[in-house]
Amino acid sequence: MTYESGTDQYDPWVKRLHVKMASPSLKDNTGDADRLIRTLKRELEVENIRIPYSLLANLPHKLRELQYDCSVAVYEDANIWNIIDIFPPDGYQQSYGIALDLGSSTLVMRLVNLDKGEVIRELSFRNPQITVGTDILSRIYYATQTGGLEELHSMLLDKINDKIHELCTQLEITPHEILALCVAGNTTMTHFFLGLDPYWICREPYIPVVNSPELILCKDLGVHINEMAPVFALPNVGSYFGGDLIAGILVSGMNHEKEICLLVDVGTNAEVVLGNKDWLMGCAGAAGPALEGGVASMGMMAGPGVIDKVWIDPETGKINYHTIDDLPPVGICGSGLIDLVAHLYLSGMIDLRGKFVPDKCGNRLVEIDGIGHFVVVSAEESATNQPLTLSQPDIDSLIRSKAAMYTILTTITKTVELSLRDISKFFIAGTFGSYIDPRSAIVIGMIPDLPLDTYIPLGNTSVKGATLALISREAREECMGIRDKITYLELNVNQEFMNLFSAAKFIPHTDKTLFPSVKVNESQAIGGA
Amino acid sequence: MTYESGTDQYDPWVKRLHVKMASPSLKDNTGDADRLIRTLKRELEVENIRIPYSLLANLPHKLRELQYDCSVAVYEDANIWNIIDIFPPDGYQQSYGIALDLGSSTLVMRLVNLDKGEVIRELSFRNPQITVGTDILSRIYYATQTGGLEELHSMLLDKINDKIHELCTQLEITPHEILALCVAGNTTMTHFFLGLDPYWICREPYIPVVNSPELILCKDLGVHINEMAPVFALPNVGSYFGGDLIAGILVSGMNHEKEICLLVDVGTNAEVVLGNKDWLMGCAGAAGPALEGGVASMGMMAGPGVIDKVWIDPETGKINYHTIDDLPPVGICGSGLIDLVAHLYLSGMIDLRGKFVPDKCGNRLVEIDGIGHFVVVSAEESATNQPLTLSQPDIDSLIRSKAAMYTILTTITKTVELSLRDISKFFIAGTFGSYIDPRSAIVIGMIPDLPLDTYIPLGNTSVKGATLALISREAREECMGIRDKITYLELNVNQEFMNLFSAAKFIPHTDKTLFPSVKVNESQAIGGA
Repeated sequence: MTYESGTDQYDPWVKRLHVKMASPSLKDNTGDADRLIRTLKRELEVENIRIPYSLLANLPHKLRELQYDCSVAVYEDANIWNIIDIFPPDGYQQSYGIALDLGSSTLVMRLVNLDKGEVIRELSFRNPQITVGTDILSRIYYATQTGGLEELHSMLLDKINDKIHELCTQLEITPHEILALCVAGNTTMTHFFLGLDPYWICREPYIPVVNSPELILCKDLGVHINEMAPVFALPNVGSYFGGDLIAGILVSGMNHEKEICLLVDVGTNAEVVLGNKDWLMGCAGAAGPALEGGVASMGMMAGPGVIDKVWIDPETGKINYHTIDDLPPVGICGSGLIDLVAHLYLSGMIDLRGKFVPDKCGNRLVEIDGIGHFVVVSAEESATNQPLTLSQPDIDSLIRSKAAMYTILTTITKTVELSLRDISKFFIAGTFGSYIDPRSAIVIGMIPDLPLDTYIPLGNTSVKGATLALISREAREECMGIRDKITYLELNVNQEFMNLFSAAKFIPHTDKTLFPSVKVNESQAIGGA
Repeated sequence: MTYESGTDQYDPWVKRLHVKMASPSLKDNTGDADRLIRTLKRELEVENIRIPYSLLANLPHKLRELQYDCSVAVYEDANIWNIIDIFPPDGYQQSYGIALDLGSSTLVMRLVNLDKGEVIRELSFRNPQITVGTDILSRIYYATQTGGLEELHSMLLDKINDKIHELCTQLEITPHEILALCVAGNTTMTHFFLGLDPYWICREPYIPVVNSPELILCKDLGVHINEMAPVFALPNVGSYFGGDLIAGILVSGMNHEKEICLLVDVGTNAEVVLGNKDWLMGCAGAAGPALEGGVASMGMMAGPGVIDKVWIDPETGKINYHTIDDLPPVGICGSGLIDLVAHLYLSGMIDLRGKFVPDKCGNRLVEIDGIGHFVVVSAEESATNQPLTLSQPDIDSLIRSKAAMYTILTTITKTVELSLRDISKFFIAGTFGSYIDPRSAIVIGMIPDLPLDTYIPLGNTSVKGATLALISREAREECMGIRDKITYLELNVNQEFMNLFSAAKFIPHTDKTLFPSVKVNESQAIGGA
């Protein structure tokens, strides 16, 4: 789903209109505010236009200074057109908006030119709440302590305001030229952003304070752009199905597809949506941070020197890898980890339970504190002067995570009496998802054995979705339509789920017919099972 | 126009609804805000319901405390229903609103029970801005000085907040149970109330900042009732035609009458509306403060001991009077002054130019600093131990004022090619107007010589109109309808106006055929003209 300036679909939330009013005279002595509204009504051909109280005090000075010829920023909400601000007609030619991905680890902010629908600058930065807790549950707990919620809210807002200030300084624009803000995040992050208590999100029956926040103004929230700029938070479906996933569906366009599509956002939670233009079903389940590389001893978030791709020569057993920015290796990220385990399996160095095969590993297998470690990068090659190793528990953890993912995928398709083979497009949302080699993910049995072109990485769909909502009225309405369309499947971790999970805790699976393409070199075939 | 609880017309701005929601469960895990909105949509059968951001933070606590069974205060604005607050279902059984007359001398505040449409308490108090200037022009000038506007705004708001606090304490209600505020005042007072610069109101081409203020919330304005309570200011038509007069028309109901009606609000400005159900024409002109008793040396605002009625025995020439609360006299108010001058004329003590007739006045006429003074109350009878006197300049001033009033009445009727005799109902708005004896006003030629039952005093139409707007949706809509219907007649003080004015500067008028009922005792007939 793309929008371009000049097409019908390009319809930004905030519009700037050139408004030239008749100057006051004895024959036309309408009030200043009424004069502006009267002219705007004619221009926009609408009934309800609102000028906020906070603009009234300065209005007569401004209109006279501009000789009743100005540029007016407006947006529509429930058939009411609200004035944000009034500008000179020939200055400030651009309107800006901010799209924000409220990631629990990383925030991504885009400055968008609303007049042209162009992304001017994108920057990403760590979520400052990480200092309170890397995982969201520990932050929810922290929020229950006195002042905790306020602290989490303001550390987030302060950081966002700092970055806005940074953007404005770099680009030489003033914050009051930024006229709208769209955010997408999971339900808890949206709560933190709005200063709402997430206490009930993680407690049965899992109730958010709000799923579809009404219109909020930046001045009330404390975001330092134009104080009358509206904030649109992509709606949540529930506690475990947030605006970030609505953004994913929006960006994928699966809600317009005739064929069955599946969307996965891989993270600590595996969030999955199945459906097409007629129906959408969503579910989410804990997959564990292993898929993101967050657990392995050498695991880390993507960054300079981090191994993001691995392949093992089947003939020589030589381990090849690629690091970000081609720097000496410092660790491995999720995509590298999936590659590594897939290739360890294909080369026979681990068996289908994910256990090291000492014969095949040779001297790469060392024991530290009684635990087997596989040396991926030697101390000499490593930027840390320490060997980078993968431990048996790291692999075990990844296998549990991939098994959880596969079980969730199986369960959601079974629920609607479909098979994984019915999926015509498999969208992978999230920056991390873009780095995963689907072939490796198939080999380890994390995702189904479908033709590789079925897999479509979408990148950071949260910031993309927030951008769409910023520049397209249709996209905003579509968010609401998607929210209303979704059936949320509460995953019952019952005996059947556990059976499926146990069967998936092998590489690629106990049922090899599910993964016909995955074949280990016969010579490397290993025993067991 | 009256509204009673239980009739179709009784439709208060703010409604309280009992809302019982389904408790959250795994099968129904909608968010708290969404749950409330969903239930309200069903109850109200409306599309758009808004819960303000400021209520969200506390919502989950409140709903759980009330076990999802509560009373919700809402109001409608442009097809959007806004939630003001959430209360226990069985506590706080009453909703209150405040109606406020923003008089430039006196403010009148009513506490209204919105559930029953009843006025609970009314109190009036001096406009604290009087310390800056008794007349509105001096306040407008003061507002142009640095910090002047802010000072005028906050002295007004502080006083209003004090009185609200006083009301709440007396009646044992909490300010957050007061859920709406309606105000009516002239254009300048409405500007001061809203903190808007009235600078351009008194300068050609006389442009208010705003005629029809949009919805304002109490928290933004700084009125200390429920912070989300909406404020409705009766709209102005222009700089010299304010919401107070819209209130007058609303209360008179002249906009529903078939016959020609006239409404006069007597004050420093004579504000006049002529019309019926088909058309309305308004104008305003300076009448001077004389009609209010504000100029005469013994003149003062109505209060204890103030002479409000005067009659002179035609046989004996004895001056009889009535004082407010039957206390010893301290001065005279406008209605007493009009009576006094009328009776002085009828008894021949002044001639048709308003000049003292020494022969008739006898020893009541004294000279102070070379100026003739008529002793109304002797020093012995007076509560001040000083004689209360009416000077020749006092009479001259009253005659100029009454001539201005009559000229304005003549001009507006002439403009639409009608005669004053075509008026079937002559409404007199304002507390002061209620005290005027129409017969005396006719005798001095201030108002036309129509049958006495043509004159209908309405009392304080500003506070009455604000009350109607508070308790009736129809009344609020009618205010907008009235505003749109009015043609404002800019009074040109041209030669014709001056000729009419000169002719009206006699008692009752140079053209005696206009006042056939006014006959001075033949024996007292005086010469001249």
